[in-house]
This record gives sequence, structure tokens and C-alpha cells, in this order.
Amino acid sequence: MKKHQPTILVVNDDGIIAPGIKALIEVVKGIGKVVVVAPDSPQSGTGHAITISKPLRLDKVEMYEGIEMYKCSGTPVDCVKLAVNKIFKGHKPDICVSGINHGLNSSINVIYSGTMSAAVEGAIESIPSIGFSLDDFTWTANFEHCKKFVEKLVLQVLEHGLPQGVLLNVNFPAGEDIKGLKICRQANAKWKEEFDERIDPYHRNYYWLTGVFQNFDKGEDSDVWALENGYASVVPVQFDLTAHHAMSILNTWDLNV
Amino acid sequence: MKKHQPTILVVNDDGIIAPGIKALIEVVKGIGKVVVVAPDSPQSGTGHAITISKPLRLDKVEMYEGIEMYKCSGTPVDCVKLAVNKIFKGHKPDICVSGINHGLNSSINVIYSGTMSAAVEGAIESIPSIGFSLDDFTWTANFEHCKKFVEKLVLQVLEHGLPQGVLLNVNFPAGEDIKGLKICRQANAKWKEEFDERIDPYHRNYYWLTGVFQNFDKGEDSDVWALENGYASVVPVQFDLTAHHAMSILNTWDLNV
Repeated sequence: MKKHQPTILVVNDDGIIAPGIKALIEVVKGIGKVVVVAPDSPQSGTGHAITISKPLRLDKVEMYEGIEMYKCSGTPVDCVKLAVNKIFKGHKPDICVSGINHGLNSSINVIYSGTMSAAVEGAIESIPSIGFSLDDFTWTANFEHCKKFVEKLVLQVLEHGLPQGVLLNVNFPAGEDIKGLKICRQANAKWKEEFDERIDPYHRNYYWLTGVFQNFDKGEDSDVWALENGYASVVPVQFDLTAHHAMSILNTWDLNV
Repeated sequence: MKKHQPTILVVNDDGIIAPGIKALIEVVKGIGKVVVVAPDSPQSGTGHAITISKPLRLDKVEMYEGIEMYKCSGTPVDCVKLAVNKIFKGHKPDICVSGINHGLNSSINVIYSGTMSAAVEGAIESIPSIGFSLDDFTWTANFEHCKKFVEKLVLQVLEHGLPQGVLLNVNFPAGEDIKGLKICRQANAKWKEEFDERIDPYHRNYYWLTGVFQNFDKGEDSDVWALENGYASVVPVQFDLTAHHAMSILNTWDLNV
């Protein structure tokens, strides 16, 4: 009996021509039928933005032989919404994979990342979803050493599924010798912003956002710890943001108006 | 002894000229020293987007007497980052309030909302933060009936603080007779997308994102239930997205490569 061939939605935030998405396609095309819907321009740092104040474009493109591909004028989340609604049309893909991002999305970066937001949107649509990122933001980043781990995780998710409302945030260290995959929690860390202040040719001030990453987390079960110690981190992520532990505290307050 | 006068950062996503932020300013100017940093154009649906590929503008404006106000060319999250870094310069405000949004941000909308993402960014900066939204997306929305509830919550948060990593997502029903404030969890609901497909004057397809809100949640402790039953909903929100309950499941998988 022929096994069911899974359908795989591939998306990213670095744009359809990024080497990272090419590496991801190269892995998953051996696993199932691949459909790529990716932004036509870089969308790093767009978080969970959606496009509501202007029209969206979605155009089929020919890039890699045998792969159905579309470029989209919107954000990574728009790509997933358009894929589900206009390409799959209700026959949802078996899995949604996002990336491989040029640059880490560990810790608090899960919130700013278009790559991870696309995977979150996949999970909102009840599609088992994984976001992949590499600790190298350059265009010439080498993704080869990530491929066997990507393949393993995609196969495991296809076999086991994921709990309802849960997706995976996977980050790879740069360099060849990854020690293995480690299940982690999101580290307590943040960016300390620094704005580069400049003067434009018309004598007006402007700012460039820069920053320094600060890790406050001493735990050895965090994603930042795993990456610093040579592991690829795998964090289960949810989009129910309720801080359940805080509800009993708030219920002690005087809220009578 | 004179009481410490709190400093209050006000932000939104509908833009600095929106009636909703004017209503919020009118409430909090009676509580402390107000600084407003808001987008110079509407930013609904921008989620947690930040601006990294172009420069940011931040300009002081005179709008309401006695209120220090700045318009920013970036996203709601950029506004908070610039406020903390360039206006407060390390002396963080005592509270960050975002809104009042024209339109609900209950349930899954917390993820797409620029209003809520600004409040999340405040919380990441360890500033007690609240996002406020009203179930009326029109420009002529009436915010009067929300004001006493906004005041009560701001005063309670200033008095009690919030647990580390927790902020509040507050949504008001439209209409005069709010039954009270109700502590809730985020409802299990989502948007069912529908893309309006059109042809432009150059015979090319384009899409407008629309959708229908679907609530799958029968619980009477959710924010959607509260709003449908005449209460204002108060959901404690966190930005640690780790699905801790899924870690033990993933640790049963074969992840050896």
C-alpha cells in the first residue's frame, strides 16, 4: 500500500530568494509535496503583522524544478493566510515549516520574528508548525549542518503531531558540530535598545534601532543555554498568552467601580 | 508629605490623532505626569513589528495643553522603545497604557494588535502595562463610559504593581451599561479568513484581507464570554510563550540524529 504523501507548506520572513528557504526546500522536498508561499521582499522583525490597509498580491513563480512556488507582497503571516485560503482552499497542509531564518529567534525574539509568527499562524490554523532559525544573519550563512536535524524534526512532527495550540521554535548554532536537539524553555532575556542618532541631509534627526542582547537567565534548561553549549534548541510555543498564574492575584484586587 | 506623582507613558496603534488616545489622555492626566509617544499614522494589525530596515523619526508636537507629546514614524513597539531610550532615558515611567483602541483586542486578537504589542513591549521593559480596547472600530466611537474603569485599573496597577512578565489586556463592550470588570482568560477563538479577490485597472489580481470571527470556546471564564455578557474583560497576558505542558511530551520523542 502506498503511503500518504504529506503536503508541506514552506514560508519564511527573509523573502523568497533567501538561501535559508532554499535549504529548507531542499530538505522537505524529499519528504512530501512542497508548496512555497513567501514574501517578495525581506520581512524581518515584522512580528505578527497582517496587511489590512492595502491590497495583497500573490503571484506564481518558477524558481526550483518541481516545486510549486508563490511570492506574496505581504507579511509572513499574510503568506500563511493566503496559502490556506487561496492555494490549499480548505485542504490544509500536513505541516507548515518556516525559515530557515538568517539569524537566531531564541528567547524573546520569538515575539519580534516574522519567521516564528508565520509558524504561529500555521498553528492557529491547526496545522502542525515549526519555525527554524540559524545563528548567522549573513546572506552567505551555511545551512548544511542543520539539514539532518530539520529532516528529523519534520518526520517526528508528521509521525506524532503536536498538541493543539502548540508549535515548535527550533534554533541552530552556527558551525558544524551540533551536539543534538534539546527540548528547552524560552530564556528570560531581552534586548537593551540603543538608537543610533543621525542627521539627514536636510538637517533633521533620525534614529536607527540597534541593541544588545541581555540574558538574565541562569537556568540550564533555557534555549539560550542550549545554543551557548552547542545544542540546537527546541522550544514548544503557545499562542494562548493568558498568564493563568496571575488570575488569582488579580481576583484579590478591588475592582468595584 | 507630598505623594510621588507617577509618570505615565501613553501609546496606541490608531495614531496620535485618534479619539481613543485622546480619551485615554483625559483619564490619566488626572493621575500623574503624562508623556504621549504615538504613531504618526494608523498602525492597526502591525502586531509586534519593529522597524529595522529604515530610519525612525520622532518629533515633539503640541496638541493638548500641558501634555508632553511626540509623534513617531514607526510601529507601536518602536514608540515604546524610543520612549524608554530617548525620552525617559533610563528613568522608566511608572506605568504604560496603550489605547484606547478603536476595536476589540480580545481572544486571539492580542497577537495581531499593535495596541497590545505596545503594552507587551512595556512589560518586556519591566514597566507595569495595560492595553485598553473598545468594541467599536469607528472613528466616532464613544469612549465616555470606559473612563471610570480605565481610571480604576490604572490606580490599582499603580498601587499593587503587576507580577514580573505580566501585563493586562482590557476590553470594553460598546454602550453605556458595563456590568463591571471581570478577570478572564483568553478565549479559544480565531479568524476565518476570507480574501476579497479583485482586478486592478491593469488587469492584475489583488486581494483584500477580510474575515469572520469564530469562537470555539464554551467556557464562561473567557474574555469573549465576558464581553458578550456585558462585562469589561481583564486578561493577564504573558510574553513567555513556552508551552511548558508540552515539554514532557516532546521529551518522549526520538530526537537522535
